[in-house]
Amino acid sequence: MNKDLKTQIIALVTPDLAQVEKALEENLAPNLDLVKQIASHLLFSGGKRLRPLLLIHAARMCKYQGADEIVFSTIFEFLHAATLLHDDVVDGADMRRGRPAAHTRWPAPQVVLTGDFLLARALDIAAKTKDPRVIAVIAQITQAMSQGEIDQLAQKGRKDVTEEQYLEIIARKTAVLIQGACQCGAILANVSGQKEQALQSFGFHLGMAFQMADDLLDYTATAEQLGKHPGADMREGKLTLPVIYSLARACPEDRAWMENMISYPDVDVDRFQKLQKKLVALKGISYTRAKACDHVAKAKKNLEIFDDSVSKSVLTLIADYAIHRKV
Amino acid sequence: MNKDLKTQIIALVTPDLAQVEKALEENLAPNLDLVKQIASHLLFSGGKRLRPLLLIHAARMCKYQGADEIVFSTIFEFLHAATLLHDDVVDGADMRRGRPAAHTRWPAPQVVLTGDFLLARALDIAAKTKDPRVIAVIAQITQAMSQGEIDQLAQKGRKDVTEEQYLEIIARKTAVLIQGACQCGAILANVSGQKEQALQSFGFHLGMAFQMADDLLDYTATAEQLGKHPGADMREGKLTLPVIYSLARACPEDRAWMENMISYPDVDVDRFQKLQKKLVALKGISYTRAKACDHVAKAKKNLEIFDDSVSKSVLTLIADYAIHRKV
Repeated sequence: MNKDLKTQIIALVTPDLAQVEKALEENLAPNLDLVKQIASHLLFSGGKRLRPLLLIHAARMCKYQGADEIVFSTIFEFLHAATLLHDDVVDGADMRRGRPAAHTRWPAPQVVLTGDFLLARALDIAAKTKDPRVIAVIAQITQAMSQGEIDQLAQKGRKDVTEEQYLEIIARKTAVLIQGACQCGAILANVSGQKEQALQSFGFHLGMAFQMADDLLDYTATAEQLGKHPGADMREGKLTLPVIYSLARACPEDRAWMENMISYPDVDVDRFQKLQKKLVALKGISYTRAKACDHVAKAKKNLEIFDDSVSKSVLTLIADYAIHRKV
Repeated sequence: MNKDLKTQIIALVTPDLAQVEKALEENLAPNLDLVKQIASHLLFSGGKRLRPLLLIHAARMCKYQGADEIVFSTIFEFLHAATLLHDDVVDGADMRRGRPAAHTRWPAPQVVLTGDFLLARALDIAAKTKDPRVIAVIAQITQAMSQGEIDQLAQKGRKDVTEEQYLEIIARKTAVLIQGACQCGAILANVSGQKEQALQSFGFHLGMAFQMADDLLDYTATAEQLGKHPGADMREGKLTLPVIYSLARACPEDRAWMENMISYPDVDVDRFQKLQKKLVALKGISYTRAKACDHVAKAKKNLEIFDDSVSKSVLTLIADYAIHRKV
């Protein structure tokens, strides 16, 4: 199933992807070699280019008549890369996309500043849209994301995070950016408020589903699939929905065992497998999967008002792929 | 002289300053208490509000007819605060504006993210101008500043920084932001390209003069005046013009002594006073002061094409104050 979805998507977007790669390289154009090295380390390490693809196909589904959707789509990859660089420094994560995180290869200050530079590149390209609505969306995104990260930091290590708090964190951490990419596609195409709203909602639910799927994979995928050891969230002290749901429903003994595991995380394979089994038994896994599926259904519902087109198919396939992917 | 200048400026801008403070507080409005604490620690610690004042009076000198110059002026204070937060983390500086730097009171990750948040606030307010030119200026500023900081980091500890390299660093670190504030005043007032250009040039030269004066004060002011120990640049491994010029003209013995002092900096008062005397004797101090005065003269020359007004007086006084201030 997921292989098929991926193959179908790739078949439809291969020419776009090639153009996005070219535009990213051209628009990186920094004056300093070091910035280029650090930025490239992350930017050209096999990202899915999900956000650019969403903007491109949202714009085309809205019958965008211009010729700049590729260039403008890079705004969201640069924004994404900027936040990843800052988040990796902030979280102290070691791996990203199967490679050592940038801050393990370069000093953290340079990585922070390269993040700033990428944000500036995003802004510079956004200014070229000459559309203040695009800028307003980007301002809202950066604001929500930085607040979300600070919020998540403040909750780090806490074992009483509620589902509601989790939803707010992932909305700000992931969904607003994906929502913004979809919304800006609509803005560029200058469609009605109703259609802009629909794409905004599509993006939000897609983003929620993507993050929930990510959080699931951290407990269900293998190290090879993830490009890093599973259980990374737990080791970083981040509680995600599979654990939050399971903890709330565990008997006192299970709860004590899980809290201990979370407080003193290790990569002991046996203990981690025991945790995985508990998350299955306590339905944390199935509950999270069901919630992600709900979001995908809601996302797709928003596409109903649009005429059929290749781009609508791409968006639909991406929504399905969100929860069926293995990486 | 400098007391008089300051008194004159304050007399002219007191009502503006009160409004700027109010607008800064209102526009900070973050959802999270921690962000507010960290941001406020820096924002409300006695900054001069130089950049807001420049935008306000540039706009008024250009006969801006709107009512939003105060609100829009906060863009540049938020931008400035954002870069200060990141720079302090990057440089590891202990003091800022006579208080412990934010990252000595809060963990560096939170400070980085608060910087991101303030940048987002700046953007959000900039989007409200609905003028893509304002956004383009801000994008250019953030790009130049992040590259400038990375460049400066790369040169840290080097003892062969040339005057040319120094000029490029301070242009990107300081002048572009002040230039941007002045230019955006012109853009908001929708004046001719010639006048926008003149204000851009005014801001650039003013910014260069301000930074050179700052770099001078680091070797000539007292700890009480600076709010931190003088010689901070040297201790952070940053060569500034007074030292660069003196090093280039020192005899081999003096050069060796100075290089040793720079390589193993300390706060031994006697040794530091000996360095100060050398910078005077080798004319590093007077040369830097002369260069700063040149920039002030060039800045003021750009104001000639504007009709006389209170705001033109404010800008002129600020230009003079740049090199006569003691803090």
